[in-house]
Amino acid sequence: MGPDERAIREVQSTWIDAVNAGDLARLLSLMADDVVFLTSGRAPLGREEFSTAFSAGHKHARISCSSELEEVVVVGEVAYTRSRESVSVIPIAGGEAMQLAGHALTVWRKQPDGRWSLARDANLLSPEAKPRL
Amino acid sequence: MGPDERAIREVQSTWIDAVNAGDLARLLSLMADDVVFLTSGRAPLGREEFSTAFSAGHKHARISCSSELEEVVVVGEVAYTRSRESVSVIPIAGGEAMQLAGHALTVWRKQPDGRWSLARDANLLSPEAKPRL
Repeated sequence: MGPDERAIREVQSTWIDAVNAGDLARLLSLMADDVVFLTSGRAPLGREEFSTAFSAGHKHARISCSSELEEVVVVGEVAYTRSRESVSVIPIAGGEAMQLAGHALTVWRKQPDGRWSLARDANLLSPEAKPRL
Repeated sequence: MGPDERAIREVQSTWIDAVNAGDLARLLSLMADDVVFLTSGRAPLGREEFSTAFSAGHKHARISCSSELEEVVVVGEVAYTRSRESVSVIPIAGGEAMQLAGHALTVWRKQPDGRWSLARDANLLSPEAKPRL
């Protein structure tokens, strides 16, 4: 594993920890200025829209995310990764927890200072089918 | 617009034409050997799984897709694009048509012969809300 792949794996791991900690400032430090998030059924989100959505989400629910990198491909100053994610959303006010799962495709850019930033992300999370008892 | 961006726009346009024509051979010629398609609620698809799903889809429905490129970013031998897609699926046996819409994030790789191939694609198509009459 080269140093770039190692660096991307570390940023991705830090990203997930920050999501679980509700640490928006940390997330903002890990994304490119022109970041775009694609999710199902809504318009693309930039930094501001992401911040609003993230804060609202953590205000109303306990969010717990895990992610497994299935692929990291580095090509010069760009990299793309595929991850398998699983998220549980537990409403703070009570009510049924929601379990989401799915893959994400992420594009990373190497910044002039050598750090890798999340530049584009397409997240295919969808509600998991409930197990039949 | 540089020659690489122009080439990617042409391949993307050819891709959509081939989808609408049901031309699987053409699509296969436009994708990288290790291509991966991510879609919601199912496992990632490689060439074979894509071929099976595409053939089954066109056997049972008339599929009409339009796509607008919202962004093309070329960085050396890699590029990523964001597109806004709209698909109608009309069952051949009759029944209600389905209208899907959403964005896609696509990663392209420049091949040794200079052609650009689709390498990774995350497609966020979801059923469109029906207009209220």
